[in-house]
Amino acid sequence: MLSRNQIKYIRSLELKKFRNEHNTFIAEGNKLVNDMLAAFESELIIAKPSWMATQGDIPTKELLVADEEDIRKASLLKNPQDVIAVFKQPVYDIKDANPSEQLVLVSDGIQDPGNLGTIIRLADWFGIEHIVCSLDTVDAFNPKTVQATMGALAHVKVHYIDLEAWIQRYKGKLFPIYGAFLDGKNIYSEKLSDTGVIIMGNEGNGIRPAIEAFVTTKLFIPNYPANRKTSESLNVAIATAILCAEFRR
Amino acid sequence: MLSRNQIKYIRSLELKKFRNEHNTFIAEGNKLVNDMLAAFESELIIAKPSWMATQGDIPTKELLVADEEDIRKASLLKNPQDVIAVFKQPVYDIKDANPSEQLVLVSDGIQDPGNLGTIIRLADWFGIEHIVCSLDTVDAFNPKTVQATMGALAHVKVHYIDLEAWIQRYKGKLFPIYGAFLDGKNIYSEKLSDTGVIIMGNEGNGIRPAIEAFVTTKLFIPNYPANRKTSESLNVAIATAILCAEFRR
Repeated sequence: MLSRNQIKYIRSLELKKFRNEHNTFIAEGNKLVNDMLAAFESELIIAKPSWMATQGDIPTKELLVADEEDIRKASLLKNPQDVIAVFKQPVYDIKDANPSEQLVLVSDGIQDPGNLGTIIRLADWFGIEHIVCSLDTVDAFNPKTVQATMGALAHVKVHYIDLEAWIQRYKGKLFPIYGAFLDGKNIYSEKLSDTGVIIMGNEGNGIRPAIEAFVTTKLFIPNYPANRKTSESLNVAIATAILCAEFRR
Repeated sequence: MLSRNQIKYIRSLELKKFRNEHNTFIAEGNKLVNDMLAAFESELIIAKPSWMATQGDIPTKELLVADEEDIRKASLLKNPQDVIAVFKQPVYDIKDANPSEQLVLVSDGIQDPGNLGTIIRLADWFGIEHIVCSLDTVDAFNPKTVQATMGALAHVKVHYIDLEAWIQRYKGKLFPIYGAFLDGKNIYSEKLSDTGVIIMGNEGNGIRPAIEAFVTTKLFIPNYPANRKTSESLNVAIATAILCAEFRR
């Protein structure tokens, strides 16, 4: 049986405050935990014996056998799985997210954990290795984000940085800085680069003016039929997906 | 002040059982309620005086002034808005969803309300008027789905029907039945029709074998770079978006 303190610690990682204090995050479920184990250092795993039986060596500092009740108490999910793991947060070098060499995705204030998780998942699908986030972007280690990545968080590096300062460094460099705008150019008629930056804005407010100032090419995903009265916009994860697919086709 | 019964009634519409019993659904927030008012019959609106002041004639059977406390009690949202409305569920004719004349989107068991809502929103963006759902697909009038459509539910008709029986009717007709599969053909090398059916499967299990049997063209969204080790799949709403964008480009 787990101690009350162990359960309390795991559950506390729902909040950014405690994640930052311990520099850890949690992942739940067999597939996700296995994906994370391949990429991150594990501090603690609690699991049912049935899960342990399916594993070989489990590289973790601490491994605790849990019963149904323990898992239910510690889990942040509606439908708890057989395993919950606590990982160290990774440290990445922002210099590796160099848009002269690759496409880099940027979040200017995306707020919804599900949206960011979905974007991390599709970045992985489309071979985008780095996502650079403004400091007010939702935390990639929010458990809802982690779960929504479906394991892609193990392959995509998410950086948090003063976005204006970061993008300022690259001003005047020889790559485009794309942004998604409702008054941009049709993505199907633009020649799209395989290096540079693609900026996606906040769900409600889009890209901030201070960041927009750096954009060299505004892009727009045309609706169909053109000029038909329609919803005003697409969800940010959906727009990111359509853009990435078009850049990578 | 609202009565306990009024609040209880509104909150009960979170559950399909009560939505079906009353044949109603709820929407919250200024933009969403206004979009819905343009399309559906309103049975009841509760709103703050400040909201009412911004409206002209409000076409609803019953209109109740609510204070902050009433709204907070009746709302299903984390951040309650100024208005909550109850609408009659619309009745649509499945015969209008004729794939000989248009692209029809099909859900074979999509379960997540957010995913379905996002798909309704992007269907609207891409001019797809009808979505035909298997009976086990999540309810389009689930409040989470309604909110995720961002108003698109007013423009897109969502049908629920025995999917196998429905698709059986169209067997051998002169339009393609597309399905999204991980072993399908590259969407970028297929000639895509502007009539027919696009089937999207359940989040975990994909398209059922009984439905797969009707598929004439299996489609696949290529990852990048090709054959790189990556996440196994894309979220169903993301895959739907990329497919619809490609059909409509």
